[in-house]
Amino acid sequence: MNLPDIVDISMGGGGKRMDLLIKFIGEKIGLRNSEEDLIGPLDMDDSSVVQIPNDRIVLTTDGHTVDPVFFPGGNIGDLAVAGTVNDLMVMGCRPLYLTLGMIIEEGFSFNDLGKICETIGENLRRTGVRVIAGDTKVMPKGSLSNIVITTAGIGLMERDAPLQDSAGRPGDVVIVSGTLGDHGAALMAQREGIDLETNLLSDVYPLWPDLKEVVLHEGVRCMKDVTRGGLASALSELATKSKCTVEVVEKKIPVDPRAKAICDILGLEPLEISSEGKVVIVCTEEHSAEVIDLLLKADSGKNAAIIGRMIEGRPEVHVKTEIGGTRLLDKPYGEPIPRVC
Amino acid sequence: MNLPDIVDISMGGGGKRMDLLIKFIGEKIGLRNSEEDLIGPLDMDDSSVVQIPNDRIVLTTDGHTVDPVFFPGGNIGDLAVAGTVNDLMVMGCRPLYLTLGMIIEEGFSFNDLGKICETIGENLRRTGVRVIAGDTKVMPKGSLSNIVITTAGIGLMERDAPLQDSAGRPGDVVIVSGTLGDHGAALMAQREGIDLETNLLSDVYPLWPDLKEVVLHEGVRCMKDVTRGGLASALSELATKSKCTVEVVEKKIPVDPRAKAICDILGLEPLEISSEGKVVIVCTEEHSAEVIDLLLKADSGKNAAIIGRMIEGRPEVHVKTEIGGTRLLDKPYGEPIPRVC
Repeated sequence: MNLPDIVDISMGGGGKRMDLLIKFIGEKIGLRNSEEDLIGPLDMDDSSVVQIPNDRIVLTTDGHTVDPVFFPGGNIGDLAVAGTVNDLMVMGCRPLYLTLGMIIEEGFSFNDLGKICETIGENLRRTGVRVIAGDTKVMPKGSLSNIVITTAGIGLMERDAPLQDSAGRPGDVVIVSGTLGDHGAALMAQREGIDLETNLLSDVYPLWPDLKEVVLHEGVRCMKDVTRGGLASALSELATKSKCTVEVVEKKIPVDPRAKAICDILGLEPLEISSEGKVVIVCTEEHSAEVIDLLLKADSGKNAAIIGRMIEGRPEVHVKTEIGGTRLLDKPYGEPIPRVC
Repeated sequence: MNLPDIVDISMGGGGKRMDLLIKFIGEKIGLRNSEEDLIGPLDMDDSSVVQIPNDRIVLTTDGHTVDPVFFPGGNIGDLAVAGTVNDLMVMGCRPLYLTLGMIIEEGFSFNDLGKICETIGENLRRTGVRVIAGDTKVMPKGSLSNIVITTAGIGLMERDAPLQDSAGRPGDVVIVSGTLGDHGAALMAQREGIDLETNLLSDVYPLWPDLKEVVLHEGVRCMKDVTRGGLASALSELATKSKCTVEVVEKKIPVDPRAKAICDILGLEPLEISSEGKVVIVCTEEHSAEVIDLLLKADSGKNAAIIGRMIEGRPEVHVKTEIGGTRLLDKPYGEPIPRVC
């Protein structure tokens, strides 16, 4: 593996550079991918399914470093719950419990800490998930910027087999649950002081139990939450792991015009930036109408759309453009926005 | 609750000030202590036992912020595994899986990251525990000092009921598994450049499966790992939760003379600083000889000793001094050493 001497900021994004970092860590730790109790794939997914004696459980973890801590439409407490709940859910699992590890900079205000914790509480009540273990550390002023929160989640498998990124087949339909890039765009607008007289908010949202019926639907083959690296990363991983071409139609991909405008100003690609309350779903053609119906009825699926399909071919993402061409949507090098989640 | 406006460094220690911070967080989140599925107490312990449909599992989490990252006898990778494994074990549980959340400063060297990951791997192989979910984030240079690692752990209950801090009874014997304060003293000696021509090393060590037979022994009522706040914090919590006086004899408490010397120079109390591979055990008098035998046979219990007992009385820790008096060992205000683990 060709690595530089130091970790650079591009490795914090959801792209190829992060894959390098994770591969390095996995090799040095000596992770093994095949074990009798491991039902779901480690395989660079960040959840795994394991058989403990009598139950099948799913485990995941997520670190949250968002800057600023309070952003339009949410705060780090929303991300801490939504990120982990959504990671569990997309495996086909009922999220049950979270652990909560907070690392706080000396001097952080109790007022802000209180708001973050109340937000965590609201999200827990909305999802029925409970925090049952926690840890706090305080770092001296200047050694950490504000606060970071790492959550781990555990859930119970509800499907016969986990939803896996490798389960897509040619002919399957590709669906997104709503507009893409809202979180990254709203965050960047605030950071850069862009005032378009818009009120674009982050889409951060824990999708369980809102999308429960979709998660359990027999026609669903793969489900991925769209986070760092945006839709581009999510579709690239589906293409690679399912060994198919993902062909999507540009004009069918829902992007909020305010997010598009913010991205245009900053030279960003909306399909490469983070959503925090959206999923991409691969489902069988015969069930796609039912799945779309379920999404449209859910609070978090109002802008759901079929955006394309899986076809035989190289593991690539093809975007049919509005002028009739086809461009390749590559896995980004890294998330263009540091500390996006 | 009377709180200052901001989080201060004392709240990062294992003492009364940390309790304030945790209480604040718990109240704002709206944690509830009694639920039908919660077998073990939340009760400010950092592990909980829950009944999922057919198994009883234990969950815990720990954040690691040690400075420097490499210290005499170990590095942050040792702490990341040992801290979580020991937290699970002291509930009466077999540790099974870890999740690993790494937050890395831009510019951190791959050489150091590789050493840390290899250390994590060695500890995993020693304990039989496996990492099955991970997350990495990179923070811009200057916004985090080096690296922090948050692990969560899951294990299976092996005893009929969890070991709880509240289970001590008058007449029970109080045992420690070895010398106290080695981790904090070794770390401080390095930070302060104290060269006593000593080679005191941190005692960081994952105690499972080394102490498995002790964990499962019928005579054991409570087990606590000694971390931030040292023996003083651990004994105070046992006294408070078991509603007894803990009476210990100063000269029976094993302290390495090198740790004592370092503490003397720095004006620290060895009983208030961190160990990372030691437990305090409360067991029935009739079984105490067997438990000590098991400890002395284990790699990590060579200096185990009976240091006192639980007696009827106020929930306090009494230390019988060498000159025949008795002093009160209070729960410290906070760990005197920031970023100790």
